[in-house]
Amino acid sequence: MNIGNSQWLAQETLRTHFATVRRQTLALTAGLSAEDCLLQSMPEASPVKWHLAHTTWFFETFVLARARADFRPYDESWRALFNSYYLGIGEPHARAQRGLLSRPSLQEVRTWRMHTDSLMQALLSTPQAPDLLELIALGLQHEQQHQELLLTDLKHHFWCNPLRPVYHAPPVGQATAPVPPTPPLQFAEQAGGLAELGHSGAGFGSVNEGFAFDNERPLHRIWLQPFALATRPVSNGEYLAFMRDGGYRRAALWLSDGWEAQQRAGWQAPLYWFRRDGQWWQFTLEGERPVRMEEPVCHVSHYEADAYARWAGARLPTEAEWEHAALESGTGVPAVEATRHPAPVREGDPQFFGAVWQWTQSAYLPYPGFRTSPGAVGEYNGKFMSGQMVLRGSSCATPTGHARASYRNFFAPGARWQFSGIRLARDVPVG
Amino acid sequence: MNIGNSQWLAQETLRTHFATVRRQTLALTAGLSAEDCLLQSMPEASPVKWHLAHTTWFFETFVLARARADFRPYDESWRALFNSYYLGIGEPHARAQRGLLSRPSLQEVRTWRMHTDSLMQALLSTPQAPDLLELIALGLQHEQQHQELLLTDLKHHFWCNPLRPVYHAPPVGQATAPVPPTPPLQFAEQAGGLAELGHSGAGFGSVNEGFAFDNERPLHRIWLQPFALATRPVSNGEYLAFMRDGGYRRAALWLSDGWEAQQRAGWQAPLYWFRRDGQWWQFTLEGERPVRMEEPVCHVSHYEADAYARWAGARLPTEAEWEHAALESGTGVPAVEATRHPAPVREGDPQFFGAVWQWTQSAYLPYPGFRTSPGAVGEYNGKFMSGQMVLRGSSCATPTGHARASYRNFFAPGARWQFSGIRLARDVPVG
Amino acid sequence: MNIGNSQWLAQETLRTHFATVRRQTLALTAGLSAEDCLLQSMPEASPVKWHLAHTTWFFETFVLARARADFRPYDESWRALFNSYYLGIGEPHARAQRGLLSRPSLQEVRTWRMHTDSLMQALLSTPQAPDLLELIALGLQHEQQHQELLLTDLKHHFWCNPLRPVYHAPPVGQATAPVPPTPPLQFAEQAGGLAELGHSGAGFGSVNEGFAFDNERPLHRIWLQPFALATRPVSNGEYLAFMRDGGYRRAALWLSDGWEAQQRAGWQAPLYWFRRDGQWWQFTLEGERPVRMEEPVCHVSHYEADAYARWAGARLPTEAEWEHAALESGTGVPAVEATRHPAPVREGDPQFFGAVWQWTQSAYLPYPGFRTSPGAVGEYNGKFMSGQMVLRGSSCATPTGHARASYRNFFAPGARWQFSGIRLARDVPVG
Amino acid sequence: MNIGNSQWLAQETLRTHFATVRRQTLALTAGLSAEDCLLQSMPEASPVKWHLAHTTWFFETFVLARARADFRPYDESWRALFNSYYLGIGEPHARAQRGLLSRPSLQEVRTWRMHTDSLMQALLSTPQAPDLLELIALGLQHEQQHQELLLTDLKHHFWCNPLRPVYHAPPVGQATAPVPPTPPLQFAEQAGGLAELGHSGAGFGSVNEGFAFDNERPLHRIWLQPFALATRPVSNGEYLAFMRDGGYRRAALWLSDGWEAQQRAGWQAPLYWFRRDGQWWQFTLEGERPVRMEEPVCHVSHYEADAYARWAGARLPTEAEWEHAALESGTGVPAVEATRHPAPVREGDPQFFGAVWQWTQSAYLPYPGFRTSPGAVGEYNGKFMSGQMVLRGSSCATPTGHARASYRNFFAPGARWQFSGIRLARDVPVG
Repeated sequence: MNIGNSQWLAQETLRTHFATVRRQTLALTAGLSAEDCLLQSMPEASPVKWHLAHTTWFFETFVLARARADFRPYDESWRALFNSYYLGIGEPHARAQRGLLSRPSLQEVRTWRMHTDSLMQALLSTPQAPDLLELIALGLQHEQQHQELLLTDLKHHFWCNPLRPVYHAPPVGQATAPVPPTPPLQFAEQAGGLAELGHSGAGFGSVNEGFAFDNERPLHRIWLQPFALATRPVSNGEYLAFMRDGGYRRAALWLSDGWEAQQRAGWQAPLYWFRRDGQWWQFTLEGERPVRMEEPVCHVSHYEADAYARWAGARLPTEAEWEHAALESGTGVPAVEATRHPAPVREGDPQFFGAVWQWTQSAYLPYPGFRTSPGAVGEYNGKFMSGQMVLRGSSCATPTGHARASYRNFFAPGARWQFSGIRLARDVPVG
Repeated sequence: MNIGNSQWLAQETLRTHFATVRRQTLALTAGLSAEDCLLQSMPEASPVKWHLAHTTWFFETFVLARARADFRPYDESWRALFNSYYLGIGEPHARAQRGLLSRPSLQEVRTWRMHTDSLMQALLSTPQAPDLLELIALGLQHEQQHQELLLTDLKHHFWCNPLRPVYHAPPVGQATAPVPPTPPLQFAEQAGGLAELGHSGAGFGSVNEGFAFDNERPLHRIWLQPFALATRPVSNGEYLAFMRDGGYRRAALWLSDGWEAQQRAGWQAPLYWFRRDGQWWQFTLEGERPVRMEEPVCHVSHYEADAYARWAGARLPTEAEWEHAALESGTGVPAVEATRHPAPVREGDPQFFGAVWQWTQSAYLPYPGFRTSPGAVGEYNGKFMSGQMVLRGSSCATPTGHARASYRNFFAPGARWQFSGIRLARDVPVG
Repeated sequence: MNIGNSQWLAQETLRTHFATVRRQTLALTAGLSAEDCLLQSMPEASPVKWHLAHTTWFFETFVLARARADFRPYDESWRALFNSYYLGIGEPHARAQRGLLSRPSLQEVRTWRMHTDSLMQALLSTPQAPDLLELIALGLQHEQQHQELLLTDLKHHFWCNPLRPVYHAPPVGQATAPVPPTPPLQFAEQAGGLAELGHSGAGFGSVNEGFAFDNERPLHRIWLQPFALATRPVSNGEYLAFMRDGGYRRAALWLSDGWEAQQRAGWQAPLYWFRRDGQWWQFTLEGERPVRMEEPVCHVSHYEADAYARWAGARLPTEAEWEHAALESGTGVPAVEATRHPAPVREGDPQFFGAVWQWTQSAYLPYPGFRTSPGAVGEYNGKFMSGQMVLRGSSCATPTGHARASYRNFFAPGARWQFSGIRLARDVPVG
Repeated sequence: MNIGNSQWLAQETLRTHFATVRRQTLALTAGLSAEDCLLQSMPEASPVKWHLAHTTWFFETFVLARARADFRPYDESWRALFNSYYLGIGEPHARAQRGLLSRPSLQEVRTWRMHTDSLMQALLSTPQAPDLLELIALGLQHEQQHQELLLTDLKHHFWCNPLRPVYHAPPVGQATAPVPPTPPLQFAEQAGGLAELGHSGAGFGSVNEGFAFDNERPLHRIWLQPFALATRPVSNGEYLAFMRDGGYRRAALWLSDGWEAQQRAGWQAPLYWFRRDGQWWQFTLEGERPVRMEEPVCHVSHYEADAYARWAGARLPTEAEWEHAALESGTGVPAVEATRHPAPVREGDPQFFGAVWQWTQSAYLPYPGFRTSPGAVGEYNGKFMSGQMVLRGSSCATPTGHARASYRNFFAPGARWQFSGIRLARDVPVG
């Protein structure tokens, strides 16, 4: 294939990026045993080993199988084992049974990764068609998503062990570093009016830059009423005030489904909080520690976020409001990446990115003009547009380079094991 | 209280309306036995007797208890029994156990209705404050909703009896009346642009005219992309083509949640359809009969509607598109009420009203600026704004005077026992 | 058919008995509304109307269909509706949906009863073969079982209504009648040795006298170790002492399955007990009243009975021990029938019969040499010989003439809605 | 402590036995990875690692903690983690979550085993009191039970992996060794009469010889009716005939609970059977292979065994019949231990031991005079005497030295993952 110079440079960048992202995934598992990597604490949370295998499967299935005439899967039987939910590829192995796969071993899965990476590097050494490169870019974004899921899932797996294993030890001295006090919560007003929502990227984006998922497209017009958005996320201390004010006992604060879910599950606090010696502690990837009041509250469901907002005399933002405000604030594409942390920390406001995903009041639905990609890869996002709520921003566990203002994360409203927090919004009366 | 003449006339109209609506509810139960009125086939479908009692409870609880200084409930213990979900009033009797209330008897519940109606008529004989009148208007709209629910619930109760009881016999000769053939499905284009959505009514509406629920308010601006809307609902014959084309077996047509729901429940056709002697029959309030291909398809879930639309190369409309098109078509407020039927019939297009509720692709969420009413009555609509989809229009079972373009009906996406059908929409490329 | 004089007399007795038993069933429903008769509070507890229909179904299906060459069912579609569990007859209507049959109405079911009774009386007016008479005798025993079930089921249905309907009012003055104090619990020793268990009846018994179910046969030898049996059932007061001693909180007292069942269901006291104003009350067929300490404890599961026995330093008897002791005490066939009561009462010891069914530690299993009857009626008892425990004696709700020492009642160990109580036993050291 | 010479010899024998049994357990895990040892495919089947830890926990908790004044648990937090169900020791870790314990690692658990073995050997080097030695003997019997469970559980874990891992490879040449044809099934008659059942062992047995669990005691008299017992277990070929004769589709063959269980679970064949290329295969610890018709059928539930027996015109034996016949046949204590195999094989009749556990028609209930041991170890057997059926004999996976005629194995009637098969019995008419 004959391609231009700039395109070749783009492909080279992608090739480097490929190596980096794949290495990062492995690096996340460095301190874990093969046993740790097999854990599955609930159907929604996959084993670490499965994440390693599934991300490899993605490149084998959607890139190599298409690019190479002589393609042979590394192991035919693994095609179903590590398929997540692409029914176009065949019937996937049952999600709830991913933790029962002691074979292939962690070592075999790692070997498969290396083998696949070699094939991919070879592929990227010769010019490839743009749509294949776009699939590779998609695969890397997919892998970054799983980097975060790997951590959120592992946190839940470890939480289910009464020994409460520590993922990585806190840095020396950190615990004693003083945390700046939380500034008072303020609301910044936005005038609203005719605005744009979404991403203009064509196809899967221009490979290396400007990537967006299909669900962020197309860029389209909307009309915004005037609104105000909080200048930072809600803190643990503020959430504790809600708890102490009977927040979990006052039905009037809750959506009907939320009240039911909360009563059934017996929620009394965010996930990973527990009482010890009369005070609230929390489990983090660095182990157990007292809840730090200044930090953004995390691991709350949409239902809890919504109830908190009602209690606070506010509401959750729509995803359009959030995106508009993030772009206006100039942090639409985070200029300086947040340092990644094992738990959300207080850093400079407005913390649109890098601390906690922020629940919106928007259901996860298609944008006007939304189109899925052809083929099985088209199952990526579209078929989940039912029963889920949009979260915006990014979290302490989101990989560098994976955040943008138009990004639409989504989970069921009762999910709590993601790094999900709360940003408030308010109506502004129309003058 | 001293009120003006026009206001007095309005109250008089309301008083007459009150008598009419209450009488209509009773009339619906005329042919039923006390045993029929006790049936509860699933938690979501209440007994007929419970509907009779709950609508009475509404007036007692929200109107009489507020209006009369000497108020005493008719029976203290019934306050919890016939409370649906207003936690502000106290803990309601369990919804799934409504069918276990042989006492109070149907006769006692009817007596309570008469007693309450007398008190209400007495109240309406002297001038009342506007906000109380608004609560009464709300109570009547509430009662009309339950008139339709009474029929949809009863249909499900009867369906669970292998004897398949008939609610009312078909009129003589009807079965032989020729049904006009379904015209080809067409799409009418709309230019979109800046538009308005919702209802401007203040409070609960101006009592007798211009009523709107809180969830239809406020009237607000939106931006619509160009779109096209089908000129009539999808017919049984068209839906059968989808079934015959493997619609229920092709995962690629379905939302992920829909596919799971469908597989788990074993859906193969709309609710109330069954096979007899090699052809499809359906159960209606007039009993069993062969499926009539020209009639609008009915008793499909949102998931089925969505899958059908994908199969047909179309999509479901948003609620904004639906409302805009209905208003444009001049049938925003149905000028001539549809004749009510025990099942949807083919009548003059576009059948925005009077045949089947039409699933949209919009989740049931608050409009910008939405406010609930103060007090327990504020639980009416707002707390259900999670996990449900909007239906628009009205059905063959909707009472006269209860349909309008801004009306937002809502049910969980898997619900099938309402008179719910399908209207298709399409994107129109922006010139 | 030519039959002897004595046999004809026996048939005449049966004919009279038939009329009596059938009338008694109807009499039990005298004060109930059609709505009351439709209630079904759980799958295990059938509606009263269903009991009326099913007992009629039994005679139609197993007697009339066999006896009459020109047999036609009263209504073909009712054959499945009122079949309980005889798969040999066809697929029965789902047990959990018996409460959804508003049609046929109570009145229609009563008419069917009368019609069937006429046919049966006609049949019994001419000489019939012994095996048919045995089926009729079986049908009457079956009907008597349902007389008791009708009451236990109704009690549970009414319990689920917060209004707590009263089945029949207590007789004037009863409440003030002094109850004699409970005598101290004593144990009567039995020497054991070679003994007989069961019933010698051939076929279904000699029609009118000496009836026994198949599960009581054959009479067979057993070896009994020496044992001692309590001279009366455990009282409410004694059971309360167990409760106050932490009986429901001490796992060591419970069978493993029992502890799980109890924790899951949250049992704290016998079924139908509740707290009011600081004391224990109970719901009876005569309504609510304080627990009477002298009366036999009732509505406990096998698990609770077993835990109580362990707490009391005793154990439950085996069914062989119970039967042996009952026969020894001379009350094997109750000479004087207990007066029937809406709740167990204290009467003359040893109360083997007429107060509460008594849980044994014997699983419900076939006796050596057990044979089921041929045909569908053979499903009567044998197929339930798994997962259930035997209860012996009879209760306050057992019809007159339906008690005998060899009678084997059986329920799942977690069942509590029968009139089930506790009689203790102890080992006696071998000399 | 001063003890006699013979007692010292007995203790020495126990010390050697201790080393042997503990080594055998480890040997079973030799070919497994740490990942394999973490698998838990259902709540009833524990991870291999958990078995290793729990058997160690038993000695630490019931022996070392009692024997040593300076006792300190190896790790305080493991006391709850590896407690199975002894509520007297404290609240055990949830059974269904045993597979979530990646920590402690397999290596740590092995180290703990070695450490505990050292302490135990030291203890057994000085004279100990008889009751402590009895606890040690109990611990070794307990460990042998877990040796079999380790294999049955592992087989189920591996079955849930579509790759179907092989536990150990079949020996060279085995597959080609001709299997002798199954001789015709015959029944050997027993006269019955007064007999003895159970075991006379005092306490936990005389330490090394004559051990019996509490549930086998006391030895007591029973009366047996004449009966006949099959001279060998039912074969795969015979069971296949039942399947082909519609055994799984004929309700009349099944206990009511069995029919329900079977319909709900969709059983069509024994567990581990599957269809491949038109014939039946089975999964074994040696991998997949065609079903061998001559071998004893295995992995059937009590319900299936019971239905098969009814189909064959026979019944299951009582445990008393089984024990009596096994003793009569001279194989009451297997003289020559069966060679252990990864699956049941055909060897010399009557195969009371060494092939498959044999379901009886006896519920697992206390013998007359049964007493539990004092303290938490008393929870060993007694509290499970509800809802389970007795199996007799031993299987291909039972360790050498762990079989005896009085042994009472027990499982819920629906359990299929044990090596459980069928031996038929028949009534013999009393002459």
